[in-house]
Amino acid sequence: MFASRPAVHPVEAPPPTDPVGQPTGVLMKDLPGMPGTAGGLGLRVAQFAFAAVALAVMASTNDFPSVTAFCYLVAATILQCLWSFSLAIVDVYALLVKRCLRNRRAVCLFAIGDGITAALTFGAACSSAGITVLIDNDLNICGENHCGSFETATAMAFMSWFALTPSFLLNFWSMASR
Amino acid sequence: MFASRPAVHPVEAPPPTDPVGQPTGVLMKDLPGMPGTAGGLGLRVAQFAFAAVALAVMASTNDFPSVTAFCYLVAATILQCLWSFSLAIVDVYALLVKRCLRNRRAVCLFAIGDGITAALTFGAACSSAGITVLIDNDLNICGENHCGSFETATAMAFMSWFALTPSFLLNFWSMASR
Repeated sequence: MFASRPAVHPVEAPPPTDPVGQPTGVLMKDLPGMPGTAGGLGLRVAQFAFAAVALAVMASTNDFPSVTAFCYLVAATILQCLWSFSLAIVDVYALLVKRCLRNRRAVCLFAIGDGITAALTFGAACSSAGITVLIDNDLNICGENHCGSFETATAMAFMSWFALTPSFLLNFWSMASR
Repeated sequence: MFASRPAVHPVEAPPPTDPVGQPTGVLMKDLPGMPGTAGGLGLRVAQFAFAAVALAVMASTNDFPSVTAFCYLVAATILQCLWSFSLAIVDVYALLVKRCLRNRRAVCLFAIGDGITAALTFGAACSSAGITVLIDNDLNICGENHCGSFETATAMAFMSWFALTPSFLLNFWSMASR
């Protein structure tokens, strides 16, 4: 009889969707230039070197304290040197122990610090450039000033900012793409 | 008998996981201040207003062309006015037709444009600030210059940059968080 052998086909249980093995967030790619990579270390070394040259050249002139913008450039490059040197050491450590620095809090801290130092260094470089152009082109009083030194220090501060911008953008990008 | 009535409990089919209704990508939240929102329109209007005031105040002095940094400030604020005015019109259009501006290419364009105008405006404001501090504090020759106008124009350019920074960061954030 049909009733004694009911044609029951048990529904096959589907495979579990496995929410643990497949991460919900997007995996961050290790782009060259991010902290903990050789490119990132290169950027930090470049920032440090340019800022150190700017600081040394500006401090070697004896009349920089008479202009506020040049004092500000000295202060900003000192801060830039300290920041880039610290992060270069962190990068060297991460490369030596092969540990990646893609921790959320670390990336957030790097992005904020890079943003602040980038704004300070760029502001200092721009104000020094304004003074330098005023002395050199508008007033033509380069004979009694160290125009060459001022221009070199300003250019080096701009170069340091150019090397800092990729670090900031990459850190901000990885902070946002989590 | 037990065999004639087998106790088969069919496995209940689980509800479908519905891969269509739930998008795999992260949905971008419409944060206040993003393009196409009232906050974004407010930021654009503020940028435009501050840049326009800076331009008007600087152009009202008769001796700004003698200093390169002040000419650069005038040029940067003109560009800032045009950019912010264009994007304010786009925001008004998006608000009127209730269309969201979260298109990938549009956000990319806004982020790059905001970044460039932010760098130009901030650079112009910093170089003007350097000159203004030199004239006012270092040389004390405010009597023969329009120090008040120069300082007002510089402050307004900084305010315009302050209003531009959230737009840039939000656009860059939404470009990265796709």
